[in-house]
Amino acid sequence: MNRTPAGSIRPSQIGETVTVSGWVQRRRDHGGIAFVDVRDASGIIQVVADPAAHDEVADLKMEYCISVTGVVRARPEGTQNPDLPTGEVEIGVEGLLVLSPADTLPFMIDDRVDIDERARLRHRYLDLRRPRMGANLRARSRATAAIRRTLDAQGFLEVETPTLINSTPEGARDMLVPSRLREGEFYALPQSPQLFKQLLMVAGVERYFQIARCYRDEDFRADRQLEFTQLDLEGSFWDRDDVLDAIESVLVAVARELRDIEIPRPFPRFTWQESMDRFGTDKPDLRFAAEIVDLSDIFATSRFGVFRDALAGGGTVRGIDVGPVEWSRARADALTERAKELGAMGLVWMVVEEDGTLRSPVAKFLDAAELRGMQDAFGARAGDVILIAADRWKLAVEVLGTLRNDLLRPAGHEELSFLWVIDFPLFEEEEDGSITFSHHPFTAPASLDEMRDNPNTAVSRAYDAVLNGVELGSGSVRIHDPDVQRQVFEILGIDAETAERRFGWFLEALRYGTPPHAGFAFGIDRLVMVLQGESSIREVIPFPKTQSGVDPMTGAPTWVDDAQLDELGITLTEAAVSRRDEGDELDQPTDG
Amino acid sequence: MNRTPAGSIRPSQIGETVTVSGWVQRRRDHGGIAFVDVRDASGIIQVVADPAAHDEVADLKMEYCISVTGVVRARPEGTQNPDLPTGEVEIGVEGLLVLSPADTLPFMIDDRVDIDERARLRHRYLDLRRPRMGANLRARSRATAAIRRTLDAQGFLEVETPTLINSTPEGARDMLVPSRLREGEFYALPQSPQLFKQLLMVAGVERYFQIARCYRDEDFRADRQLEFTQLDLEGSFWDRDDVLDAIESVLVAVARELRDIEIPRPFPRFTWQESMDRFGTDKPDLRFAAEIVDLSDIFATSRFGVFRDALAGGGTVRGIDVGPVEWSRARADALTERAKELGAMGLVWMVVEEDGTLRSPVAKFLDAAELRGMQDAFGARAGDVILIAADRWKLAVEVLGTLRNDLLRPAGHEELSFLWVIDFPLFEEEEDGSITFSHHPFTAPASLDEMRDNPNTAVSRAYDAVLNGVELGSGSVRIHDPDVQRQVFEILGIDAETAERRFGWFLEALRYGTPPHAGFAFGIDRLVMVLQGESSIREVIPFPKTQSGVDPMTGAPTWVDDAQLDELGITLTEAAVSRRDEGDELDQPTDG
Repeated sequence: MNRTPAGSIRPSQIGETVTVSGWVQRRRDHGGIAFVDVRDASGIIQVVADPAAHDEVADLKMEYCISVTGVVRARPEGTQNPDLPTGEVEIGVEGLLVLSPADTLPFMIDDRVDIDERARLRHRYLDLRRPRMGANLRARSRATAAIRRTLDAQGFLEVETPTLINSTPEGARDMLVPSRLREGEFYALPQSPQLFKQLLMVAGVERYFQIARCYRDEDFRADRQLEFTQLDLEGSFWDRDDVLDAIESVLVAVARELRDIEIPRPFPRFTWQESMDRFGTDKPDLRFAAEIVDLSDIFATSRFGVFRDALAGGGTVRGIDVGPVEWSRARADALTERAKELGAMGLVWMVVEEDGTLRSPVAKFLDAAELRGMQDAFGARAGDVILIAADRWKLAVEVLGTLRNDLLRPAGHEELSFLWVIDFPLFEEEEDGSITFSHHPFTAPASLDEMRDNPNTAVSRAYDAVLNGVELGSGSVRIHDPDVQRQVFEILGIDAETAERRFGWFLEALRYGTPPHAGFAFGIDRLVMVLQGESSIREVIPFPKTQSGVDPMTGAPTWVDDAQLDELGITLTEAAVSRRDEGDELDQPTDG
Repeated sequence: MNRTPAGSIRPSQIGETVTVSGWVQRRRDHGGIAFVDVRDASGIIQVVADPAAHDEVADLKMEYCISVTGVVRARPEGTQNPDLPTGEVEIGVEGLLVLSPADTLPFMIDDRVDIDERARLRHRYLDLRRPRMGANLRARSRATAAIRRTLDAQGFLEVETPTLINSTPEGARDMLVPSRLREGEFYALPQSPQLFKQLLMVAGVERYFQIARCYRDEDFRADRQLEFTQLDLEGSFWDRDDVLDAIESVLVAVARELRDIEIPRPFPRFTWQESMDRFGTDKPDLRFAAEIVDLSDIFATSRFGVFRDALAGGGTVRGIDVGPVEWSRARADALTERAKELGAMGLVWMVVEEDGTLRSPVAKFLDAAELRGMQDAFGARAGDVILIAADRWKLAVEVLGTLRNDLLRPAGHEELSFLWVIDFPLFEEEEDGSITFSHHPFTAPASLDEMRDNPNTAVSRAYDAVLNGVELGSGSVRIHDPDVQRQVFEILGIDAETAERRFGWFLEALRYGTPPHAGFAFGIDRLVMVLQGESSIREVIPFPKTQSGVDPMTGAPTWVDDAQLDELGITLTEAAVSRRDEGDELDQPTDG
């Protein structure tokens, strides 16, 4: 069809006959004349008709899909709309065709209306017609195009790795796919292409990337989806800085594309230790100050029991100046409660008075030197609130880091703060005292000796990218020596036989001249979310699921015929059968 | 690391010190001097060392991963290798580092060696080091980049549709994914993004594409994989020719990228009827002639019973001149046997003698007018073989079409023949006489009246793209009117209640101002296969599975813990349990 994009029409086209096709955004009648705003992907144009001459106009309702032919003309003086790119012109209707009528809408196609998310997901195809959601779709498409352009130009190959694989050990549950040709056996959907991208390095690909669909069957907390998309990247003969350089080039390109700003490079880097010490988190948000200060020296000989005991027990006393936040007894209590939820024994607060003295329930326990030390440490000004935690190091900094975010984090994403956290610990201690990997078991240790001698504190060659306090993704220099890989498995408590059974094929691959290699992966959903100023990844995923994994539009997941399951060598458990028989109805999602 | 690509070194760099990292491709010793060919992704360079001075050189074996530093120098007169871009230079070793040793290889990294496919898949990371496979990986990456560039430039949005969906009706079995949060229920993996891309049209996206992973649990015949990749595309306010135009632009761009040739546009178009009549198939190969000729008029009054009976029964007599193929009694018998396998009653053959007469077992039944008619129809030359089938129309042309391919199809893919087949039948008759869809149930009929009055012969608005006799993909103008969609379901025997239960959510979406739309999807695997001159899609898929869906490298699929299944509300059937207990071993694929 010979269509003119609605949003493209300008005064230079006055006198031309055009055809626009799109949706009825709005219709007003004035003195027997109908004004219809027609919207398509390019924008909006006003069309004007005499309903007496054009019967169809009388029937037009919101979101009818129509095609209009007419002559472009100037809007009468005083009726121009400067807010609209097409605001100086209109189309005088000569022919009008209803392509598809529309039922009464479940909600208005308008960004200003606040709609229940379940209704939005139930009619996602209407939700996506809203300008904000349309912009998010376009932004995501432009983001992935910018990523590919950037990596293409650097000689990366995009390689598709399989999605029907066997289970991989990445810390979340695998989603399974029953095999029909081998009844009773299962494929797993990939949590990431980790092992396959390492195999591509063994295969000599040297520079790989993929925008890959990944799957994690986690209990939906925070803002997770069963399926998500990541940029996955790996390079051979590479060290950490090669990876950081490539990823920075990509992130800068996406920020330029979506926000038209130039992010300075290199991004700031913090070791994990420094990040924890200064910001109490491994994903610090640098858009605001209020760094954590070590007060242990000041209170080294304090007569205040809480501080003294913490220090005596090998702990620490740390504080932050959160600035002139509004302060009340109620707020103090709420923050103390929050600190306790986070595992702290309590929270000490101080307010800087006009005369420079410190008001605090514990002030009476502190001597003049301590108070002066505090003032020096923070350079605090009148009205500032200081929060102090005394505890084991990690707990103290994490509590202060969380309160820092709670109190100071800006709501939007106007400012962008990219940074790297490097030198993560290699292992983490589990609650039962056993050791597990921090990143994944294919991450290289900074030092083999350190790994063997002090696994609890050993540093890895892993790194994270952080944007505005959101972890975008992580990567590492990988182990390329099968003997080192075996040693890591051993420390993780994976015995040789288990390692052979689960990863034998991978360990074998490492024995054929594997190049040193390193890589990274970051979540496209999260990156686009932050750059678009959204606060949930569901806003930038075209068809997301609810927190309980349901699609309110299609009703997925659903019950399946027994015969179909039998072909796969599986059958429902009794518990599932009774859940089904108790009337969880087909195609009727019940969660909210 | 500061690496110089091995394949990039030229005489202009003589005297420079460089470091190359890569794999030992070959090593020769000559009079105490070692010559080592080092290969990386960019090519090969010869390095030369005195093993006495460089101990490590003595230990180098095939496919060791090494790093070499040395001075670029001219090769001695007479030892240059004109076949190698780096053939005029070599590197005199000053430092050598073994990055990773390599075990003895299961097969040589060499295109000239013929290796069992199972061994290749078992060590795919080594197979991919072979130049041909590396070239296929690069070609695929360049193909998808060219596709995206072409569609980006035309304003298409790439939109990711979900892969955990509910079952869709596309003629193959769905692969299922059990849900843990809704125990006993299942997601399906998409056979294509069909319904979601139509929803994107409802959502106002107007121009959509996606390079999408799709899943079909078919019995592996021909050359199929459980997962495959397609370019999926859809446009609103579009008619067939808009789709053909967009897809042609993409195919031409990919052919230019991979083969450096300019395919003329528009591609030839054949209606399905014409394609069947002339080539006996809906995916004709135009690289050779031998079109089917209708001989019914010539034999209208024949006294040869086979022809007479076929015509009397409403059938047809058709023939092809397959040219001067070698002919013998044995070959004639074999072709007749093949025709019978295909369902024909038999096959008539004739050979054109030097004097222009026709030699054939049936010549004696034909009169002079018939023989002259044959000669006129084919313009056959001495030595040509003519094959004739007399049967129902479809069977006759299909048998001749198959024999045409069997006898004349060229082995390689040097020449490229792109074409369109349009105006496919809307429905197909099943063996039990019921009616099913030819393309999919969302395809628009050419005429509503024809669909209602003569569903068996009604023409659809579907079309296929064909390259060298391989169906690349298919598409159609879609139904955008929910009432038409209901009528199609009705003809397909899907009653209103079933339609509502299975597709109610989709039919509802069509009721909110759905634009007319049309689209297409083609297989990336097949396109790259043909353009790379390969004869199996497994050669252009980085990590394919065997015909029985097994990955010989990782052993997927595998048995899974009962506890993990229980969490999903499923358990193995007794049949599967006994298969497991009878020792189909974990991680030990047994198929070939």
